[in-house]
Amino acid sequence: MSQCIATYRIYDDQADFHKKATSIAVGMTVGSWTELPQAKRDAMQKHLGEVVSVEVHEGWEPGSRYADVRIGYPDINFSRDIPALLVTVFGKISMDGRIKLTGLELSPEFMSGFPGPKFGIDGIRDLLGVHNRPLLMSIFKSVIGLNADELRDQFIRQALGGVDLIKDDEILFENELTPIEKRVKLCIEAARETEQTTGRKLLYAANLTGRTSGLRERALRAIDAGANALLFNVLAYGYDVLHELASDPDIQVPIMAHPSMAGAFYQAQHYGIAAPVLLGQLMRIAGADLVLFPSPYGSVTMPREENLAIRNELHSAKLDVKRSMPVPSAGIHPGLVPRILRDFGSDVVVNAGGGIHGHPMGTEAGGRAFVQAIDAAMKSIPLTEYAEQHQELKAALDIWGGEV
Amino acid sequence: MSQCIATYRIYDDQADFHKKATSIAVGMTVGSWTELPQAKRDAMQKHLGEVVSVEVHEGWEPGSRYADVRIGYPDINFSRDIPALLVTVFGKISMDGRIKLTGLELSPEFMSGFPGPKFGIDGIRDLLGVHNRPLLMSIFKSVIGLNADELRDQFIRQALGGVDLIKDDEILFENELTPIEKRVKLCIEAARETEQTTGRKLLYAANLTGRTSGLRERALRAIDAGANALLFNVLAYGYDVLHELASDPDIQVPIMAHPSMAGAFYQAQHYGIAAPVLLGQLMRIAGADLVLFPSPYGSVTMPREENLAIRNELHSAKLDVKRSMPVPSAGIHPGLVPRILRDFGSDVVVNAGGGIHGHPMGTEAGGRAFVQAIDAAMKSIPLTEYAEQHQELKAALDIWGGEV
Repeated sequence: MSQCIATYRIYDDQADFHKKATSIAVGMTVGSWTELPQAKRDAMQKHLGEVVSVEVHEGWEPGSRYADVRIGYPDINFSRDIPALLVTVFGKISMDGRIKLTGLELSPEFMSGFPGPKFGIDGIRDLLGVHNRPLLMSIFKSVIGLNADELRDQFIRQALGGVDLIKDDEILFENELTPIEKRVKLCIEAARETEQTTGRKLLYAANLTGRTSGLRERALRAIDAGANALLFNVLAYGYDVLHELASDPDIQVPIMAHPSMAGAFYQAQHYGIAAPVLLGQLMRIAGADLVLFPSPYGSVTMPREENLAIRNELHSAKLDVKRSMPVPSAGIHPGLVPRILRDFGSDVVVNAGGGIHGHPMGTEAGGRAFVQAIDAAMKSIPLTEYAEQHQELKAALDIWGGEV
Repeated sequence: MSQCIATYRIYDDQADFHKKATSIAVGMTVGSWTELPQAKRDAMQKHLGEVVSVEVHEGWEPGSRYADVRIGYPDINFSRDIPALLVTVFGKISMDGRIKLTGLELSPEFMSGFPGPKFGIDGIRDLLGVHNRPLLMSIFKSVIGLNADELRDQFIRQALGGVDLIKDDEILFENELTPIEKRVKLCIEAARETEQTTGRKLLYAANLTGRTSGLRERALRAIDAGANALLFNVLAYGYDVLHELASDPDIQVPIMAHPSMAGAFYQAQHYGIAAPVLLGQLMRIAGADLVLFPSPYGSVTMPREENLAIRNELHSAKLDVKRSMPVPSAGIHPGLVPRILRDFGSDVVVNAGGGIHGHPMGTEAGGRAFVQAIDAAMKSIPLTEYAEQHQELKAALDIWGGEV
């Protein structure tokens, strides 16, 4: 019987976890079991949830206990979409005490509804013509209230630094000064120009916003205007909206998932949805080509192990869909590049905002310092040594520090 | 300057909360401020967030501190939709330490995009012809795997008990046995029949599921088949999808919001979104006519103060949209009816699953016991006294206990 398995971490100092597991398996599927007559049981057997495993652990505090409980949900019970999956595995029970959804094992049957990322890591590399190093992304900064000329100016300064991708600020919505078609046109035009100078192709991820039913058409208009990537605040809309955009045959550009609102789900120890499920697995099956999440390096941080678990979900061969590109974000400066490569490998996007715009020699130099740091790291040359011949990198290391 | 104000509770034993508030107000709007030249400041002033108030409190544990911080976000910065609002007020900062979104004060300017519930409390009462008492709702139980005849049979037994509303189980998705059009047809047909017996009108809330872009059409087909209400797992799809369904001129039936997944947001003390915002205010502005949430009475519980705060948001005259009907759910039995009335007033839905189906004399008697309890409570007759002449109520009080 084909089923999807959810893992929960349940904290309870008193509970009989095996009984609790059974009550979830029954309660979230057929509703009742022991009181059913045998004939009815035979008919309902294929709908009944299964307790796959229960592992009880002692907690840190004396007398405290928690358990990792795995429950199998028959695929026949729900449809092939993420809302149905989430309501089934974490609808009502999200409200039932200290419980966190920590894992999902999705069946091939369920995954048949999920084409996954259209581009994935390899597709993005093909678009950029870059196969042998991490990618470099720059984030627009303080764009609310900028007019078209100011936006274009900032775009060009980022592009000239040699970045591979530039993304909109996720809080830039439709506005009179720089509506999406207008800013796509001017940014893509600027990209064509700077490509002559840098020799590098550039993806610009324009923030797709507005009412849900208008997103597809707005995306198509942006693409008509030249957009070659889209940024999307997935959790503010729901995974299914990403799933629909990403599997739309007319939307032939990579989609970058922003983790807006994610902290409301993953930050609590005892509640919510763990980051590797929220920002790893679900983003990937919904079709995100790139996924941003808080890096372990900056002020807005996530523990390193959680970061690596997200990366593992985005890269894992367990899922039969393309791999998504991890984009650890916040607090990134050139001195961190070797560490990012050690933590993530080279299938990663080095993504910086303040670490580019805040460079003492300016935004363009900020990009160059990262390009130099990536060059050095790929050649296994210590940054401090490489910086002797590269002034932008040297200036960055001087203010933000070097390899740790 | 028109703005929406968000309140956060921030837990930090060390922080300078005033500095933190300023960094949110600047960081989530214009990005930087003190380093801007004066001319630029003049241009950006209208986009700058405002620290409205900062109240610092001592925590329970010695040395612990938290603050209630109110930040105003200029309406000019974002569009008139809930994704834009949430990304603006709780996008990035949801991930920045121990912070919970606890309140929203929405401007008339922002609210101009929100028609609110189409029916609301008064509209639902008009549909049912019931104006002077709380409404009674029954929940389908163990419906996965039921065929059409079994479903119809359970519907009739609930309807004959005298309930005003019957709702689908929220985990019933599209399936071969009872797809939405088929079950709407047979339930509404059954309702017409039972109305002859009970003399009561009945709303049946069919669970609207499936892919996002197909919801509108599926809703219309269900309505064509006779559906007179819809159930919707709002948080699995996103508030904007509810907003679009509820403001669609072709969808002329009440929409009932299920709190599936809500626990992932509201349960943690230090993180997420507080229940009155999540299940009160946002559900109402998105257009939910009825809103379910965990009652303070059962096993899946929410503290009474939070319940009342949700009710206050659903009923509040502060918002210029229709009022939504609160539906405290889980653990409801007839003996609780007087307490529900004391806590919520009579503009409430008394909603029971096990408290109806688990009645010792059967489902139909289970409904009748509630009808009797509501009659007694409205006449201010003690339940135990009323039960002397009403055997269904007596049987219910005998197994579940009476008024507390």
